[in-house]
Amino acid sequence: MTAPAPSELAFIRFVSVENMMKLIHQIGIEEMMTGLVGYIEEDFRRWELFDKTPRVASHSAEGVIELMPTSDGEVYGFKYVNGHPKNTREGLQTVTAFGLLARVDTGYPVLLSEMTMLTALRTAATSAMVAKHLAPKDARTMALIGNGAQSEFQAMAMRAVCGVEHLRLYDIDRAATDKVLRNLGGLGFDVTACATPEEAIEGAQIITTCTADKQYATILTDNMVGSGVHINAIGGDCPGKTELHPDILKRSDVFVEFPPQTRIEGEIQQMPEDFAVTEMWQVLSGKAPGRTSERQITLFDGVGFAIEDFSALRYLRDRLEDSGLYQNLDIIADPDDPRDLFGMLQRAKG
Amino acid sequence: MTAPAPSELAFIRFVSVENMMKLIHQIGIEEMMTGLVGYIEEDFRRWELFDKTPRVASHSAEGVIELMPTSDGEVYGFKYVNGHPKNTREGLQTVTAFGLLARVDTGYPVLLSEMTMLTALRTAATSAMVAKHLAPKDARTMALIGNGAQSEFQAMAMRAVCGVEHLRLYDIDRAATDKVLRNLGGLGFDVTACATPEEAIEGAQIITTCTADKQYATILTDNMVGSGVHINAIGGDCPGKTELHPDILKRSDVFVEFPPQTRIEGEIQQMPEDFAVTEMWQVLSGKAPGRTSERQITLFDGVGFAIEDFSALRYLRDRLEDSGLYQNLDIIADPDDPRDLFGMLQRAKG
Repeated sequence: MTAPAPSELAFIRFVSVENMMKLIHQIGIEEMMTGLVGYIEEDFRRWELFDKTPRVASHSAEGVIELMPTSDGEVYGFKYVNGHPKNTREGLQTVTAFGLLARVDTGYPVLLSEMTMLTALRTAATSAMVAKHLAPKDARTMALIGNGAQSEFQAMAMRAVCGVEHLRLYDIDRAATDKVLRNLGGLGFDVTACATPEEAIEGAQIITTCTADKQYATILTDNMVGSGVHINAIGGDCPGKTELHPDILKRSDVFVEFPPQTRIEGEIQQMPEDFAVTEMWQVLSGKAPGRTSERQITLFDGVGFAIEDFSALRYLRDRLEDSGLYQNLDIIADPDDPRDLFGMLQRAKG
Repeated sequence: MTAPAPSELAFIRFVSVENMMKLIHQIGIEEMMTGLVGYIEEDFRRWELFDKTPRVASHSAEGVIELMPTSDGEVYGFKYVNGHPKNTREGLQTVTAFGLLARVDTGYPVLLSEMTMLTALRTAATSAMVAKHLAPKDARTMALIGNGAQSEFQAMAMRAVCGVEHLRLYDIDRAATDKVLRNLGGLGFDVTACATPEEAIEGAQIITTCTADKQYATILTDNMVGSGVHINAIGGDCPGKTELHPDILKRSDVFVEFPPQTRIEGEIQQMPEDFAVTEMWQVLSGKAPGRTSERQITLFDGVGFAIEDFSALRYLRDRLEDSGLYQNLDIIADPDDPRDLFGMLQRAKG
């Protein structure tokens, strides 16, 4: 007896790192950022119907491994993501990730994808989506403080979605800034490397902080921040890791993704439990105002939420069909008679 | 520029359904059951050191999708599993599953595997491991009530580990029984198809119930069960799904995997919150007695626990190296400089 070929149901689509990079170039990174922003906006507008299970974390001395599930009632998705700050010293990624979509009606998985690269894009797309609604309309200059793995993605998304053209870079490690200068060279930005954070934020309407050290840091102090700017604070994303002096939070209108998570992981972990914040989904669905005056400081305390990963996987799924940039993975045992799993195994003996 | 080849770190091992079936035949299904029992016993003996996070369930009208994570401090594992009873009517599996192992120290995934087939094996191996410690020593006859997808695996595991030779089959659907007769034909069992549950349990020292209907059923009533038997009740595994009359539970010594889960999902959901049970890990580590008399009825109220999946994935990992039955999956973005994810993407432009 020969084993019958697996049925179509036995396969799910898999997007490798290599295929993800090909897809990004096939679509174009700025076009993809714009597309992702559209999907994220759509999901923020229907925020209330999502199953917002808290992430499930397994902590160790070295780091954390998390599962971030969510569902819109038709599609279920989750992301596996680790956070190991010490990895960098060993030449490893601090964060690696992969994600999955499944059908709610049958429970069958349909798509598995690398998400280290995709998370970098969705994080930048989320920042740009928020800045689109909160930053001054004529913002063309962004300070980029922290020039690590996320920084270039922020630049690309902010240009694609908000029209940012001028970048002012700062990092405590000049080698990181040089890396950004190298990577963005020839991509049409006007880039200035700065010697201090103070210099970096001169004339910037958007201030992005994406530093990586796990500690209570003070990248920005209150006297550095002028009126009317939009602060995009995305580096503080776990307990014990913040970037801003609390006085800045007091002077700003703070916007968040999901308050129960942000109060633990975000900049506002420094503030009292009842510190007022606005949820971004409310801005998107017209239930709360975004920017209301030219002098207002708006602050996005971004930590990353499961729904953004869900949006990114939905976008990926919809762009995959035409691209052909996937493999079929034989991960579902699908016997002709569902009760005959053992018979399927026997017939595979060959 | 051409994209550099991904480093070894970028890959994880993937075991497809096809390779899993080949591996089972390469090792031999009974040899594999014995091996799995060894790994499960080892993990039950060190039960206390495991991170026993409750499973994370996403419920819908049609079914449930669950993530079952655990960790022993060095290795992290989780299983994705769905439960959709109506799937069978559409020719789909009620349960599909896949699992993953990762390193706790770096958070990097190392192994991804199909687990529909592997779960069938680990469920049977767990039953056999428990029966090895609780069933009468001379048990050679097993009643197998419910002849669905799990039943043949139970037979193979019980023979490999406990020496069961005689099987007495019963199912409300005779076609299911015929399927088992067909599948086990020529494998050296003495098999009797029975017309009623009463007939099936005649002379059986082990009674396995593995029926699939999601309802409060009464497969066994009290007057059917004689003294000295071991009941292996594994079909009741979610709220609202049980197989035994509560009077049987009162007459038996009940053994469970993880009480907080079993009280919700197992047979003992019919009993008061303080109904006495013994945890199997305590039997394995000598902290509680197993069978203490010939007349005692022992009852394993099995619902399946994350640590058993972890044991199965560990076994798989250890047997994979020599078998060659895996593919390498390019799922981790691994730039030479961890801060240079964008540079890696740019260099892939080709």
